[in-house]
Amino acid sequence: MTRVTLLTDFGTADGYAAAMAGVVAATAPEAGVEHASHAVPHGDILGAALALSRYADLYPEGTVHVVVVDPGVGTERRALAARIDGRFYVAPDNGALTLVLQRAERARLVDITEPDLVERASATFHGRDIFAPSAARLARGGALDTLGSPVHDPVLLSVPQPQRTDAGARGEVLEVDRFGNLITNIPGAWLGSGARVEVGRDPVGELRRTYGDVGPGEVVALVGSTGLLEVSVRN
Amino acid sequence: MTRVTLLTDFGTADGYAAAMAGVVAATAPEAGVEHASHAVPHGDILGAALALSRYADLYPEGTVHVVVVDPGVGTERRALAARIDGRFYVAPDNGALTLVLQRAERARLVDITEPDLVERASATFHGRDIFAPSAARLARGGALDTLGSPVHDPVLLSVPQPQRTDAGARGEVLEVDRFGNLITNIPGAWLGSGARVEVGRDPVGELRRTYGDVGPGEVVALVGSTGLLEVSVRN
Amino acid sequence: MTRVTLLTDFGTADGYAAAMAGVVAATAPEAGVEHASHAVPHGDILGAALALSRYADLYPEGTVHVVVVDPGVGTERRALAARIDGRFYVAPDNGALTLVLQRAERARLVDITEPDLVERASATFHGRDIFAPSAARLARGGALDTLGSPVHDPVLLSVPQPQRTDAGARGEVLEVDRFGNLITNIPGAWLGSGARVEVGRDPVGELRRTYGDVGPGEVVALVGSTGLLEVSVRN
Repeated sequence: MTRVTLLTDFGTADGYAAAMAGVVAATAPEAGVEHASHAVPHGDILGAALALSRYADLYPEGTVHVVVVDPGVGTERRALAARIDGRFYVAPDNGALTLVLQRAERARLVDITEPDLVERASATFHGRDIFAPSAARLARGGALDTLGSPVHDPVLLSVPQPQRTDAGARGEVLEVDRFGNLITNIPGAWLGSGARVEVGRDPVGELRRTYGDVGPGEVVALVGSTGLLEVSVRN
Repeated sequence: MTRVTLLTDFGTADGYAAAMAGVVAATAPEAGVEHASHAVPHGDILGAALALSRYADLYPEGTVHVVVVDPGVGTERRALAARIDGRFYVAPDNGALTLVLQRAERARLVDITEPDLVERASATFHGRDIFAPSAARLARGGALDTLGSPVHDPVLLSVPQPQRTDAGARGEVLEVDRFGNLITNIPGAWLGSGARVEVGRDPVGELRRTYGDVGPGEVVALVGSTGLLEVSVRN
Repeated sequence: MTRVTLLTDFGTADGYAAAMAGVVAATAPEAGVEHASHAVPHGDILGAALALSRYADLYPEGTVHVVVVDPGVGTERRALAARIDGRFYVAPDNGALTLVLQRAERARLVDITEPDLVERASATFHGRDIFAPSAARLARGGALDTLGSPVHDPVLLSVPQPQRTDAGARGEVLEVDRFGNLITNIPGAWLGSGARVEVGRDPVGELRRTYGDVGPGEVVALVGSTGLLEVSVRN
């Protein structure tokens, strides 16, 4: 079963997310629609890019990942479809694919311009009118090139990069997740097992392996599930 | 793959929504269950009706749409099953199908009275005990008429209707969606491209095509994705 | 279609829940992933156990239920897989299966120790690294015993038990659900139809059959959809 995943900032209550799922179901009835999330904070493109980067490559090849966090809908921003390391992506050209592209070995992108897909699109809901139909075509085995012409300059977010310093490494907090974990951009691989961690000028102590290495309510620094340094309070 | 969509005000955390999905899975194992939303505001029948109207017809024919926003559960209100323009619906008889019925070309409704479905139902959870099993039967190809007797007077919400006036049109805000868009009942087709829009006595300015036609933070009036006049603040 | 259900406290916005779904999809492509809920309150093991108990047995035999509410991730707590009355379960050994086990006729549990599953697991995300892959194996027909060795002493929550008294029965509120219903541990089967209910020292009145038996805004005691005494305010 080919999967089409949907990631948006629509919430579900208004029925917009289900509208996208319905369009996929109508065009690619044998595909499975997976609601990755519709709870991305409104307009948070970096948040969408981070979330996508956590699950995109875990799905099997052939999966179609759709991202619609799209504050620029109806402006001149392009609509992208891509094939990146065996999976397909459909998203506005606003940086949502940044993290997936940064680690890609092979990426091919097109600007969705196929008249059937764009000519009758509403001005405000490209998720339903352009992105979902494009995803459904890809899920049915349609070739990427039939959607539009190649793009070589996708918009990329300027994600802060960590730096190695004489004392070790310096980076920034990219995101606070639902558990309150501060997720930095510092790769765990840069840090030795006895590394000492500071946030701002406040010492957090030695790098630990897991939450259970400190008591409940204590601050802990560890390498999180995506390989990045995280700072958390246990429980 | 036949789809059964679920729209409720249950939230998901208590397991009630999953209970409905489990009942469908047990009776119609080859059907796909799609959680349209469980985040309808508690008891908001109009909200459910509006959400449903946004996705119902986008799903392929044969899809079974279940709506359980049901403040009257356990009272004498009827339980409805319907076939409307090729899709099936299962819902309490409280107006949740109003918008779908208003635009229907062909509708056939029955009151779910089949003893297997109603006799052992709990008094408080018809979603699990009546609506999900009815939906599963329809998804397996069961005939609508086997569920109960025809109904010709379903409860309809009194949705405010827009009016044409000498100056143009007058209507009401039906809903505020998750993005904060004010969604009115005025069809975009009634409005010329240079139409001037007012909310209360406050001018919003000329009808625009899309959010990008005004600056961030500015108020904009446009025809939204469902063909109705909307008033928004960009981003 | 074999189903794998997921119940977590991850929310969806960060992409962790979709990561689990992706792992299942990659290993068991023909299985259907159902997101039971990702909105369990953070670390609320009893809440997860109650939610699970509401849907687990409604799914058909062979379904794989995954629960990841796991404040002890990375500590010495065991990871469990189980076969209980025809369905499979995968969860940390922290009590999440308590209610399902208390009503089980046949249960068989193992400690997940299979090297392929545990040796490369991260210290903080066993949902993705241990529980989802274990579930996918079971969904593909893998034998429970291949995951690890039998466990006979799973952690059980100490759920308050109701007592029969001279005057009738006494119990406790186990949970407040999304609708604000107070769900007690007193079986409805213990109560006669004219039973009088008190909360603390406040009389609620006679046991009713359904919400509609009192006026809007009034307090009502009734036997809820899971067979337990509940106290609610109508609408």
